[in-house]
Amino acid sequence: MQKKRGKKMVRIIMNGCNGHMGRVISELVEKDENAEIAAGIDVADMKIYNYPVYTNVFDCDKEADVMIDFSSPKATDNVLKYCVEKKLPLVLCTTGLSEEQLSCVNEAAKETAVLRSANMSLGINTLLKLLQDAAKVLATAGFDMEIVERHHNLKVDAPSGTALALADSLNEAMDNEYHYVYDRSQKREKRDEKEIGISAVRGGTIVGDHEVIFAGPDEVIEFRHTAYSKTVFAKGAVEAAKFLSGKPAGLYNMSHVINK
Amino acid sequence: MQKKRGKKMVRIIMNGCNGHMGRVISELVEKDENAEIAAGIDVADMKIYNYPVYTNVFDCDKEADVMIDFSSPKATDNVLKYCVEKKLPLVLCTTGLSEEQLSCVNEAAKETAVLRSANMSLGINTLLKLLQDAAKVLATAGFDMEIVERHHNLKVDAPSGTALALADSLNEAMDNEYHYVYDRSQKREKRDEKEIGISAVRGGTIVGDHEVIFAGPDEVIEFRHTAYSKTVFAKGAVEAAKFLSGKPAGLYNMSHVINK
Amino acid sequence: MQKKRGKKMVRIIMNGCNGHMGRVISELVEKDENAEIAAGIDVADMKIYNYPVYTNVFDCDKEADVMIDFSSPKATDNVLKYCVEKKLPLVLCTTGLSEEQLSCVNEAAKETAVLRSANMSLGINTLLKLLQDAAKVLATAGFDMEIVERHHNLKVDAPSGTALALADSLNEAMDNEYHYVYDRSQKREKRDEKEIGISAVRGGTIVGDHEVIFAGPDEVIEFRHTAYSKTVFAKGAVEAAKFLSGKPAGLYNMSHVINK
Amino acid sequence: MQKKRGKKMVRIIMNGCNGHMGRVISELVEKDENAEIAAGIDVADMKIYNYPVYTNVFDCDKEADVMIDFSSPKATDNVLKYCVEKKLPLVLCTTGLSEEQLSCVNEAAKETAVLRSANMSLGINTLLKLLQDAAKVLATAGFDMEIVERHHNLKVDAPSGTALALADSLNEAMDNEYHYVYDRSQKREKRDEKEIGISAVRGGTIVGDHEVIFAGPDEVIEFRHTAYSKTVFAKGAVEAAKFLSGKPAGLYNMSHVINK
Repeated sequence: MQKKRGKKMVRIIMNGCNGHMGRVISELVEKDENAEIAAGIDVADMKIYNYPVYTNVFDCDKEADVMIDFSSPKATDNVLKYCVEKKLPLVLCTTGLSEEQLSCVNEAAKETAVLRSANMSLGINTLLKLLQDAAKVLATAGFDMEIVERHHNLKVDAPSGTALALADSLNEAMDNEYHYVYDRSQKREKRDEKEIGISAVRGGTIVGDHEVIFAGPDEVIEFRHTAYSKTVFAKGAVEAAKFLSGKPAGLYNMSHVINK
Repeated sequence: MQKKRGKKMVRIIMNGCNGHMGRVISELVEKDENAEIAAGIDVADMKIYNYPVYTNVFDCDKEADVMIDFSSPKATDNVLKYCVEKKLPLVLCTTGLSEEQLSCVNEAAKETAVLRSANMSLGINTLLKLLQDAAKVLATAGFDMEIVERHHNLKVDAPSGTALALADSLNEAMDNEYHYVYDRSQKREKRDEKEIGISAVRGGTIVGDHEVIFAGPDEVIEFRHTAYSKTVFAKGAVEAAKFLSGKPAGLYNMSHVINK
Repeated sequence: MQKKRGKKMVRIIMNGCNGHMGRVISELVEKDENAEIAAGIDVADMKIYNYPVYTNVFDCDKEADVMIDFSSPKATDNVLKYCVEKKLPLVLCTTGLSEEQLSCVNEAAKETAVLRSANMSLGINTLLKLLQDAAKVLATAGFDMEIVERHHNLKVDAPSGTALALADSLNEAMDNEYHYVYDRSQKREKRDEKEIGISAVRGGTIVGDHEVIFAGPDEVIEFRHTAYSKTVFAKGAVEAAKFLSGKPAGLYNMSHVINK
Repeated sequence: MQKKRGKKMVRIIMNGCNGHMGRVISELVEKDENAEIAAGIDVADMKIYNYPVYTNVFDCDKEADVMIDFSSPKATDNVLKYCVEKKLPLVLCTTGLSEEQLSCVNEAAKETAVLRSANMSLGINTLLKLLQDAAKVLATAGFDMEIVERHHNLKVDAPSGTALALADSLNEAMDNEYHYVYDRSQKREKRDEKEIGISAVRGGTIVGDHEVIFAGPDEVIEFRHTAYSKTVFAKGAVEAAKFLSGKPAGLYNMSHVINK
């Protein structure tokens, strides 16, 4: 695609460009009039892109407005260091960060704009907000809260980062009084009022389904999100990148993008 | 059950006491320490209750704090007249009222407290509120809105009053720009952006399922409510009656009860 | 209800008559023209029934055509002994039996008719059969199989006996090559092809939902059963009792009742 | 992809190559070692393929083993004529054919192999079979049958060809005693026992969901199929093409492919 170089063009460094999400984002940005990928970072240059790929983030000297990171926790330390050094806004989509890394994220956000989200879809981020309102009414009225997530059979972690984010959102609304339960087969006792059960289903090529269940006396309310393709996450990441470009240092999340 | 006559005892006149909901409410109130049925109204006295039953509402001279009406639109005119005359608060659960009757309801609410709701469950009434927030984000972002309801095979009206209330709630949040579509089999054209499809499934003894679907590019968000028994509606009606007892004239709905 | 004593009247001994299922069955039989409860057995006589209740099964000398057992594994040994002694057909609905008890069931079935089922509903028993056909096509074609069950928050065992029966049915169709997984949160590895994940959701008063998922490349097929009340299990148990009355010794299951 | 020309290579003429399904099939075949597209047919040659495209099927003189047709009923007459003339096996995926066209299909099947299917997915075709077994048990026992389908907001016909095929399958199992109902909003009467309600939901980019509901007393059994991408249909069509290549004249359907 022939792109017009106007002032709205957002230049992105794509960290994890060889991964599945890196590819989907590259394809999406290819067709986007207001964004381009200035450089990619990954463990190898597979020569599949028409943008330069660096195997060490610190070798990348391309001018850019924002970095998108969709890689693995191992890469996060360098990513944070690089973004702080360059004052480069960072859209951080990698999940599974350690407690220590999370505090590094908070430190980095003092120096540059950092948007962190376990799930980039509009749907999930809308739910994260609504579920808090639901919990305040329904959990307070004695409804039990449960989460069931479904993903493809290659996903190694369980439950998903998004399921945990949903649970945290419910929990936060209820003054963090709840604990999470992942397995009920090893005990013989009735459900604790203050538990949130989280179940992980794995199979086929399921992109990502999340279901939050409020079960009360004789009625059940369910909130369900189904992603039909990874494009939905790529789109959210690119929207976030456009939003974050030029923003002052600070910690952002997708609700800022949705409500901009 | 031996009831203690304390000051919290709410005395209810049950209009439509022979109907399914009238029976469930009677059973429920029987076990309630803070409520009792002072009299019932229906087309016949079936001698199944230990409270007096009147076949004409105007014959009922029992002292009461509130009336619950779960009957049919035919009875509504007299019910409104009676409650205005006696300044008796009214929980109006009958659906399918005509436009003219609805304006009578508004008139009556100037003289006595009237709470009207198409669905008495906590779950549906929580959804009615949340769905407006969801619509403002998702429909504005281009998501299509659809409703599917399921009820037992004896229900004669379709779609359900609750489905219409859900649609109205979505529509209100979007400045009433939407219209409703009940049948797509008779035309060959793509969906209008401003339509809300409403489908009615009928079968078995299904108490009442309602599903609101937001379908966008590559993602779908669903809100689903399942009622497992009619007790859930009876409970809501009794809660509403307790709430409304002693309230000043005005128009109320279940959100007042939930947020009391 | 005034019952006509005809030759079709099936006389039932209800073991576990005080439990939830015992009560629902008692109510149901009360309205049944072709069945009656001759005696109940439970740990105490709560004087709530118009039939005699024995606290020791061996004290019961009432003539009967069949016993329904809906109690706990602790009671099963005596139940089996009693039925063998009296050559009384037995509808055995208690779940969670030990391997040893299961072989006692097989022994007992050599002396009297025994029908054992983890779930008495027509729906689940129809699924048990269809799922085997589905597995043979879909699992053979590489689809992954998963089960999610939901029950009320007082249920102490997980997963449910019905979920295990469904898994066993799938497994049997696939030459028992599969193993079951109840928790994925403690490991970081991709799904094994030969595993069936079984998740247990607990909340509110959910009577019993079971979902069997076949997830393949870009498509998912789900089989879902929802019980709206315990009456559905009671009905199945009574149907089974009527069927089993007068049958010769042997091991039966609900498929015999369905296909009679 | 460099393809090895071996004896297993199936040569396909793709009718409707510019349409969405034509594109997905072209991409899929590109990566298939045992199939290739010999020629495409469509109203225009968009010069996007490395195979020749003809705007009139009768101009196509390429040797081929099978034709896949994913176009519109308007094109079907010529397609049938061409395949009969050339004795070319035909995978006919176009839906919405008239009664007259359907009898032409039957005529054509006397001269060449014709496989017709409203839905090419393994999942739907497995369901078509299982649902007949389910109907024979459940509908016979008094369960009501209902279908809900969901598709993207550009689909112009409703209900989907697949929903109708599912309904026909249920109906056939019940001696064709049922009729179909698409709209319940225009009448006020309870459900007829012999009706199958079919509802069509439209929204977003939903690829195709189909839900068959059996609703009985206090229990509901649902069969649900979700397609996550059109690749699933493309795969089925290519499998069918491979199967049909070299087969004698006759009418085939996907169950022949599944059970081959």
